[in-house]
Order: sequence, then C-alpha cells, then structure tokens
Amino acid sequence: MAERLIHLNAFENASPVNISSGLWRHPEDQSHRYKDVRYWIELAQMLEGAGFDSIFMADVLGMLDVYQGKPDAALRTATQVPINDPTTLVSAMAAATRHIGFAMTVSLTYEQPYAFARTMTSLDHVSGGRVGWNIVTSYLDSAARNLGRAEQMSHDERYDRGDEFMEVLYKLWEGSWEDDAVVIDKARGVYVDPAKVHPIRHQGPYFSVPDAFIAEPSPQRTPVLFQAGSSARGQQFAATHAEGVFVHGTRPEVIAPVVANVRARAAALGRDPRSVRAFAVTTIVAAETDEAAQAKYAELLSYADYEGAMVQFAGPLGVDVSKFDPDQPLTEINPNAAHFTRHLFADADPDRVWTLRDIADYMGVGGMGPKFVGSGKTIVDEMQRWVDIADLDGFNITYAIRPGTFADTVKYVVPELRRRGLMRPAYQGTTFRENIYGAGQARLRDDHPGKKFWRG
Amino acid sequence: MAERLIHLNAFENASPVNISSGLWRHPEDQSHRYKDVRYWIELAQMLEGAGFDSIFMADVLGMLDVYQGKPDAALRTATQVPINDPTTLVSAMAAATRHIGFAMTVSLTYEQPYAFARTMTSLDHVSGGRVGWNIVTSYLDSAARNLGRAEQMSHDERYDRGDEFMEVLYKLWEGSWEDDAVVIDKARGVYVDPAKVHPIRHQGPYFSVPDAFIAEPSPQRTPVLFQAGSSARGQQFAATHAEGVFVHGTRPEVIAPVVANVRARAAALGRDPRSVRAFAVTTIVAAETDEAAQAKYAELLSYADYEGAMVQFAGPLGVDVSKFDPDQPLTEINPNAAHFTRHLFADADPDRVWTLRDIADYMGVGGMGPKFVGSGKTIVDEMQRWVDIADLDGFNITYAIRPGTFADTVKYVVPELRRRGLMRPAYQGTTFRENIYGAGQARLRDDHPGKKFWRG
Repeated sequence: MAERLIHLNAFENASPVNISSGLWRHPEDQSHRYKDVRYWIELAQMLEGAGFDSIFMADVLGMLDVYQGKPDAALRTATQVPINDPTTLVSAMAAATRHIGFAMTVSLTYEQPYAFARTMTSLDHVSGGRVGWNIVTSYLDSAARNLGRAEQMSHDERYDRGDEFMEVLYKLWEGSWEDDAVVIDKARGVYVDPAKVHPIRHQGPYFSVPDAFIAEPSPQRTPVLFQAGSSARGQQFAATHAEGVFVHGTRPEVIAPVVANVRARAAALGRDPRSVRAFAVTTIVAAETDEAAQAKYAELLSYADYEGAMVQFAGPLGVDVSKFDPDQPLTEINPNAAHFTRHLFADADPDRVWTLRDIADYMGVGGMGPKFVGSGKTIVDEMQRWVDIADLDGFNITYAIRPGTFADTVKYVVPELRRRGLMRPAYQGTTFRENIYGAGQARLRDDHPGKKFWRG
Repeated sequence: MAERLIHLNAFENASPVNISSGLWRHPEDQSHRYKDVRYWIELAQMLEGAGFDSIFMADVLGMLDVYQGKPDAALRTATQVPINDPTTLVSAMAAATRHIGFAMTVSLTYEQPYAFARTMTSLDHVSGGRVGWNIVTSYLDSAARNLGRAEQMSHDERYDRGDEFMEVLYKLWEGSWEDDAVVIDKARGVYVDPAKVHPIRHQGPYFSVPDAFIAEPSPQRTPVLFQAGSSARGQQFAATHAEGVFVHGTRPEVIAPVVANVRARAAALGRDPRSVRAFAVTTIVAAETDEAAQAKYAELLSYADYEGAMVQFAGPLGVDVSKFDPDQPLTEINPNAAHFTRHLFADADPDRVWTLRDIADYMGVGGMGPKFVGSGKTIVDEMQRWVDIADLDGFNITYAIRPGTFADTVKYVVPELRRRGLMRPAYQGTTFRENIYGAGQARLRDDHPGKKFWRG
C-alpha cells in the first residue's frame, strides 16, 4: 500500500500573501514576518516535526497588474508583492532541520543554465541534499518587460527553450563529474581527478556551454523536479522532466484526467507512470469538530479581501474585471469571463450564474483552489476520496493564516493520517528525494530521462 | 582617531582553495568542509566573537585554464574549483549571528539588474541588514563562454554597462519604494500604499526596466558596495560606487598611490574621500612568538603546491607558463612574464632574476599578496605601518589553512589590536554598513551618488 501514502507539502511564498488575500488582517496572522528568517526556521521545524515532505515555495518576478491595468490593488492587498527571493531562505531553514525538503520556484526563462545549475547545486550541498525545483516557464508580462525581454517568447518557444535548458542542466548535474571525481588524496596531492571531470560540449539553438561544471556533485545531483504545466505542451514537458506535478482543480474528478494524462505521457517516454508523483493544491481549515471548523472558516472568510481576490482572478483571465459591476451576472457582462469561471469552478452547478462577488466569496479563503474544512476525520476522509478518485500522492497545502493553517494541520490532520497509517512512520532518508521515493533513492530514478546523462 | 581604527574582514570563498594552493593537504586544514553549512556557521560565530566587520566571499564562474591550456591543474589542486555560489550561505550564517556582515562577490556581467536587485534585497532582509556586494565585471573567458557570451565584452564596454547596471539598482533600491510605503494598516486593509511605490521608468542602452521594484526596502536598502578595480576605468568606477575598495600589493608604498587616486577621484565626484574605505589583502601567520610564527610559516609552506601557484600566476599573466623551465630565469624565457613578475612583486630587489620556482615559493602561502608573519605585536606593528603609509582602513585576511589562519588571528592579533585601542570596543549597530561607518549609518551616506535616487 505504499502507493496510498499521503504526502504533505506546505505551499508557501516569501510574501505577505500567497493565495488568501486579506487574511493578513486576521488577529492571529503573522504574515508580516515573511522577511524574518526566524519565521521560516520555526515553520520548517514545526513541519519537520509533523513529517511534511517539504516547504514548497511559490514565486513571481512581476506584479499582478491586469486588474485596473496597474499594480495598485496588488500592492494595497500585498497580493504576491512585496516578494523576496525564496532561495535566500534555504540555508537558514536547512541548518535548523535534518529531513524536510525545500522546493524552490524559479523561472528558467530568465536564467542562464550554467549559473543556475551552480546555485541549485550549492543549495543542495548546504542542505545536505534537500532541494527541489519547481520549474516555471513564466507567464507574466510584468516580469518579462523588466528582465530584458520586451515581450514574452511564444508559449511553445518557451517550452522548446525549456527542454534545451533541462538538457544542459542534466549534462552539468549528472554527466560532467563522475561519482569518484573528488578524491581528496593528500598523499598524491590530488583533490579532483581531472580525468573524471568532463566538458559537456553543449551546443544548441538556445545555449552554448562547452565546459565542465564548476561545482562538484551534490547529494542529489539533480534537485527534485516539480512542474505544473497544464497545456498539452506543458503536460508533455512535465511528463518528460517532472518527478512531481502539482495540479489545480476544485474537484478530484477534474484533476483525475490531468494526472492520468501526464502519467500516460510519462509511460510513453519509458518512465514508470507512478513515479510521477501528483500533488493537489488545497487549503485546510481544521478544528476539533466539523462545527468548530465551519465556524473558523466563516471567521477567516470575514477577513477576505474583494480586491485581492479580483487581482488574482483577473491575472489568468486576462481581463480587467474592475470595470464590471460586482453584482451583475457575469454571463451578462463578459462571455469569456463567464466561460472561464465555469471552467475554473467546475464543482459548481453548471447552471449557476456567477457574479464577481460570488467569485470573491469563493476565493476568499483558498483562492481558486478547493478547501477542506472540518475535523481531522472529515478532512482525512476528503483527502482519501481525492487520492482515490484522482490517483494522488498527496497535497500542497496553502495557508489561510500563518502559521495557523499549518499549525492546525499538524494538530488535527496529521494525527488522523497517522492513525490510519497514511503517513510514513518516520523519514526514510536524509534527502528530499527519499522523502518522496523512499530510502536509497537520493538520485534520479533510472527511468528518468535525466539519468541517461549520468556517467557513474 | 576614528580614522586609524583597523577593520578586519575574512577573505573567503566557497571552494577548497582560494589563494594558498596545496594547503588543503595540511593536517589541520578543514577546507574539504567548504560545502558543509556548519563550517560557515562556526566561522561566522568565531569571527563575530572577535569583532570582524565581515566575511568577504570571493567567487568565480569559470575555471582557471590558461596553465596547460586546460583546467586540469586547477582541478587537481582544487584551485578555485569546485566552487559553490556564496550567496546560498548567507541566511544560515546570519541566523546564527547578530552583527557580522557578509560581502558577496557577484559579477554583474551575467545578471539582470531586476532579478539581482531582489536577491540582494532578500539577503539583506533575512540577515537584518548585513549584506555587502563586491562588484565584479569579470575577466575570465571561461565564464563568458558558458554564460551566453561567445566572448567578453570589451573592457570599457563592461564598465559602461556596469554604470548603467548600478543606476538601475539605485533606482530600484533607493528610489522605488518610499520609506513609509509599507503601512500594514489592518483597519483600512492597506498593506502597501501604492502612491508611495514608484515605477522607475528606466530606459537605457543596456537595460529597460519600466516598473516598480517588487521587494520592499531592506534595512540597508543598497548593500554595502565594494570594488577592486585597478585600471583607470576601474578606479573611476570604484570612486563612483564603492564604499570599500580592496587593494592588492606586496608593499604599502605600492598601494598608497592606488588608494590616493581612488579617493581623489571620489572627491572630484563630491564624495568625502575618506568615506571610501580601503582594505589591503594580506595573509596572516601568527603565533606566540616571532620564531614560532616563522617556524609555522615554513611548515605551512612545505604543503604549498607548485602547479596550484602556477595556475594562479598564469591566469592574470595570460601566458601558459607550463611550457617554461621552472628553474630558468624568466628574463631569458619571456620578457612579458619577467616584467609582470617585477611589477607584481614590487617589494623584491629590482635587480633580482626570478624563476618560476621562486615565484611558486613566494606564492605558496598567501599567493601574490603580502604575508604578515610573527607574534601579535609584530603583526600589529606591520598593520600600523601599512595603515600609515597607504592610508588604509583595514585588511582582508586570506587564509592559509581553515579555520586555523582565522583562529590564530583571533588568538594572537585581535587581542593586540584591542590592547592598542585599534579596534572598536564593540559593534556599533546591527547592520554591516554601521560596522564600517558607525552607529546610525545603516543607509548610504548622503554624499554617495546612489543616495540621490532616494525619495525618503
């Protein structure tokens, strides 16, 4: 039954708000501590105590500015701005823990693979093999225009460049330094055996990297790879590279075909389809009883922010909804927005007529994702239902308040998961990849396409 | 007499070897721990206990491969390879200390200012205002060819781009967010006041950055800026931007005109010339007595590595000296090398005829820089002589062995400096800049050119 274990990740970001805009105003919320390294150390220690696989850091390099055509509402509500570079937090959290992993969102669109490879390898060294990378190819025009690209590359071009970027990384991480290249032989005066360090001689349409890697192999070599691509091209990219996909959807029935599709594509590439771990994004509101949890949900929702929700809704929709009447049915105002909403909230009555206020109410706690509200028993029942229907391996848990949402999950949900034998009794190894695949699997699996670059 | 205080920085890098190749073989050396976060935490705590201003991290993104026309000897002797990204170490060291600063070498040649600005701001947040930046414009072809540039930009072009890069950074760090932009007003539901966050609208020959900064101001806003430019264009760059310059030379008489020149250029730009702090690079071999220190020096030197020294000598010389007879006078083999050597080792007898073996002997401990060998009294005498002649503010101390060189400095040199009142009795503030300029100066000085972008 190893397949049915439920893995938990905390879905975080180095900003006052990730998903639930307005909740920073809650009396118990500590989101203003996002720039305080102590917040991160305390969080990592608490989650490691509960057996979480990782802290999974979202990131953006541009502001959400579709709403009102400017970033003012994003700033006012601190919705993903200000935001710090999450990689700068890793070594402090790693030094204070021993097992929990750290998955970092970094867009490859604005990086050079040679320098980026070294940063990730360095993080893997300082954490003793506990770094993951959520591969993003970026969608924000606001990032592109400040980072030397007047406009975005086309969608497919981004993925083509991404595939070559990954190839360069595999060559550097897996293929450049053999396992026994570092000998540290004091008698012979040889620290590294140059015969076991190989120039990668990469020459492609996007990158030229002729030389050997400049860093020695880290415990995992390649960090644990995550992806969340949803387009056909994105799913093919995920099926090729991802060891974990995280999937969004308000019902497990919506997620199931996405997971099945990525796994089928992975199988077609010669990978064990089950080796692509699937994590659904959800927000947890847990309490002693279902009634107490529902009351907590209502109380949390009272701090939600209409504008903050609209900032997040307008971004992917690509329509400035500030011009719409909040209480007028969307079907009357904008057919695209109405269609987008039906698609997004697939769990709702298909005949329901949504207004923007309805959407903001839905998004207030947990944004466009689902929320599991209840006692530990109710939430774990729901988790199991999702796992069964969508063939999941676990959840990326977003916070409503910090660290309250995670503290409640640790207090109410984790014990119930343990009671049912749904969490591994203890960490299986010392690396992030072993948290996911079990003891001994610190490196890429043999069926992962990056592994073919490994020289042993 | 505040001008005559002597400030100490530890000159480190995240590699088995920085300057003294071969010394990793010394029985007491722990350089193999360069990838162990505990090494860095222990070092930072020891140096903070002794009142050091900072740990100053060197870095390169390419291998030294002029010697033999390949990187094999650099690898064999681990001379600046393998090397990790030093920025990944900051948060762990910062979380374990309260005062010591962390100066990071990063080449601006391969960075986009918008993303780089955020990384430095994030490091300044997580360290509570203790980050510095050693601005490098890169000279290694081996870095350029792996980072998307088939060849280096011309020397002057690198500095022109560098000046614009700095302008973008000042706009982001100083000018984009007003001091009271972050209000965190729960009653009004305003986290950031958008009226106090300004798009920087930068449009120049090298960079286009229209939008506002995505991170909120950190304690120092602009990190403490260091530079080591030695060409005329490099000195002008340093005089414009640097708050600290670090200078290389085997005699203080050689360093004096360099320091005077940078300060004169700074004065011409309207800056207080004394506000450009000058630090000389040196290696310290300290012991209870002069005799014991000389014996220690001889013992250290017995672990020096000829090839490692030649790897470092060949790089800036630009000549593959592996083809030369180690024992033949350089004047007979290569006039350029002979001239370079005379220039480099300006303290030697001008009529001396050097061989490569002589050079390797000189470089064995401390590389091309000076070394202060002796009791605490002797070394502090020498420090004072250097400070007086070259008008210095302190020293960047390179290690022969780790952490032994720093432990000896703390044990033998720091007490003598304190005895003479040459070190401040305690840290003056909580930021790196206050370590250098004194309490209250967490931000750029008013006469620094970056300050004119500040909006208050």
